[in-house]
Amino acid sequence: MDPSLVKIPPMKDLTADNITENVITINSLCEDPRMKYVLERLVTHLHDFARETRLSSDEWMTGLRFLTEVGQICTDVRQEFILLSDVLGLSLLVDSIDHPKPPGSTEGTVLGPFHTHDAEEMPSGDSMSHDPKGEPLLVVCSLRDTEGRPIEGVKIDIWETDSSGHYDVQYAGREEPDGRCVMRSDKDGLFWFKAITPVPYPIPHDGPVGRLLKKLHRHPYRPSHMHFMFEKEGYDHLITALYLRNDPYETSDAVFGVKDSLTVDIGKVGPEFAKKYGVPEGQALLTYDFILVSDAETSELRAHNSKVALDKLGRKVKIVNGLPIPDLD
Amino acid sequence: MDPSLVKIPPMKDLTADNITENVITINSLCEDPRMKYVLERLVTHLHDFARETRLSSDEWMTGLRFLTEVGQICTDVRQEFILLSDVLGLSLLVDSIDHPKPPGSTEGTVLGPFHTHDAEEMPSGDSMSHDPKGEPLLVVCSLRDTEGRPIEGVKIDIWETDSSGHYDVQYAGREEPDGRCVMRSDKDGLFWFKAITPVPYPIPHDGPVGRLLKKLHRHPYRPSHMHFMFEKEGYDHLITALYLRNDPYETSDAVFGVKDSLTVDIGKVGPEFAKKYGVPEGQALLTYDFILVSDAETSELRAHNSKVALDKLGRKVKIVNGLPIPDLD
Repeated sequence: MDPSLVKIPPMKDLTADNITENVITINSLCEDPRMKYVLERLVTHLHDFARETRLSSDEWMTGLRFLTEVGQICTDVRQEFILLSDVLGLSLLVDSIDHPKPPGSTEGTVLGPFHTHDAEEMPSGDSMSHDPKGEPLLVVCSLRDTEGRPIEGVKIDIWETDSSGHYDVQYAGREEPDGRCVMRSDKDGLFWFKAITPVPYPIPHDGPVGRLLKKLHRHPYRPSHMHFMFEKEGYDHLITALYLRNDPYETSDAVFGVKDSLTVDIGKVGPEFAKKYGVPEGQALLTYDFILVSDAETSELRAHNSKVALDKLGRKVKIVNGLPIPDLD
Repeated sequence: MDPSLVKIPPMKDLTADNITENVITINSLCEDPRMKYVLERLVTHLHDFARETRLSSDEWMTGLRFLTEVGQICTDVRQEFILLSDVLGLSLLVDSIDHPKPPGSTEGTVLGPFHTHDAEEMPSGDSMSHDPKGEPLLVVCSLRDTEGRPIEGVKIDIWETDSSGHYDVQYAGREEPDGRCVMRSDKDGLFWFKAITPVPYPIPHDGPVGRLLKKLHRHPYRPSHMHFMFEKEGYDHLITALYLRNDPYETSDAVFGVKDSLTVDIGKVGPEFAKKYGVPEGQALLTYDFILVSDAETSELRAHNSKVALDKLGRKVKIVNGLPIPDLD
């Protein structure tokens, strides 16, 4: 680096009071206005956090060591930083911001670390769980837009644990996917399948995030739920899950995923459904009507929410590529 | 975990607006009031950061991947999270908060990642650098308390790069320490040694932090400096450095270490010093008078600064073990 090429605005004599503006200044040459804005807020909050806690050097070092361990335990099949984001409520928050839902549509929730891309595509009616110890469950769902019209041909990813609370990928000897499938909605927007009744399970807690939870007297459990993901061009990607009402962990989910509108009662298959879907009467039954939002509606709502949030901050912003940046004109 | 043992205050139906208070509530069972306060501020700032930037899911994932890489490049001899903290100005800020300095005392600055514990103890007058290509430099210093009294027997760590801008530990074949030493101040608070004139050098920039700097159009250089660390019971641990005035990177230090009071001019050895210290006349000379602060004075100032900072926040606090926690009584 030729020092004569240094274009950085001069700074020195840094103190606890002026360090923040100086760091923002040195970052101000970044050509990407969105990245510049994100970094400005990041540095501001990071520094305010240290100033407001009067963070000690020992605590700072403890924090850096913790983050290092979080990074080092990550592998191709384990993402401890997502887990950390989950237990701090950040994952749920980011999903709420990025996928705002108008009233009446199906809310999103945390993706979690157990979705895979190798699930088998199945026609409606098939079994997506082969765990003989699971309690058989019939799942019957519909898929509509916000005006009540059925949506055909949506790609639907569904995944759940086995009866012991483990996803297939948590077994060392996994040879093929189980407890997961991909379906398509039919022309009436319907899809149905055979599964097992979800059970509660702990998130991986043998690493640094588990130790943090323990220190906070928090348990690592998630209430019983089944994951769903919906994709179709023109519609906002929906990542969600259905939660069983009255689960012991319903109000203390380790990753903050539960929402009232996603909490369901397990019913029983009556004579009509038993005949129609070919399952025994009295079997456990889950029904749900999902409502997808169009991309256009989501973009508009996202931009509107951005403006409202940034107005509160007293910042004039413009929306570029769907995301806010300060409006300096 | 027996669900009947769940004592966590109930929460659900989480939204972008109420997630923060819910996460703080679930963390509230932590028995350590200091940790509880630090986590409360951490969660608040983390969530406000996401809300104010309207962080997208893609950006969130990019951030988590970046942090994962920062963790994974760390080894016994490389701490990329410290480097990240350095280039974001957090390290300098935490040092300023934890080691406040009354007017007239020597200011602290960033430790950096190159201090080791194996430096040889040397008597005053010895050479701490054996790089034949370095420009010989005589360093003559004094050490006093805030009332001007010499301090004897202070353990002084000193370290600098060789003439190519590399610390000894950056060489694969390092057999013994060089460019570093430990000295003790004499009864007049004096210590002096032979070194080489410091040169600018880049921080390690072949990892994720280097990529971040590049994206921000920042260079990775530190201006020429020599590190000092002072330890004696009863005195606040001082980590500092002296910077050469008019260095090309003086006002754009990649890690924000430069302070006016720590910036020095390199002089020339005159006839008196040449005779006294046995070096050639005209050789480069660095002199500095360090002023150490007592532990008691530092604790008082730290507590005072904490109260002022938290008063601004409108928070009633008490100081426990030198650190603030909310005063709930």
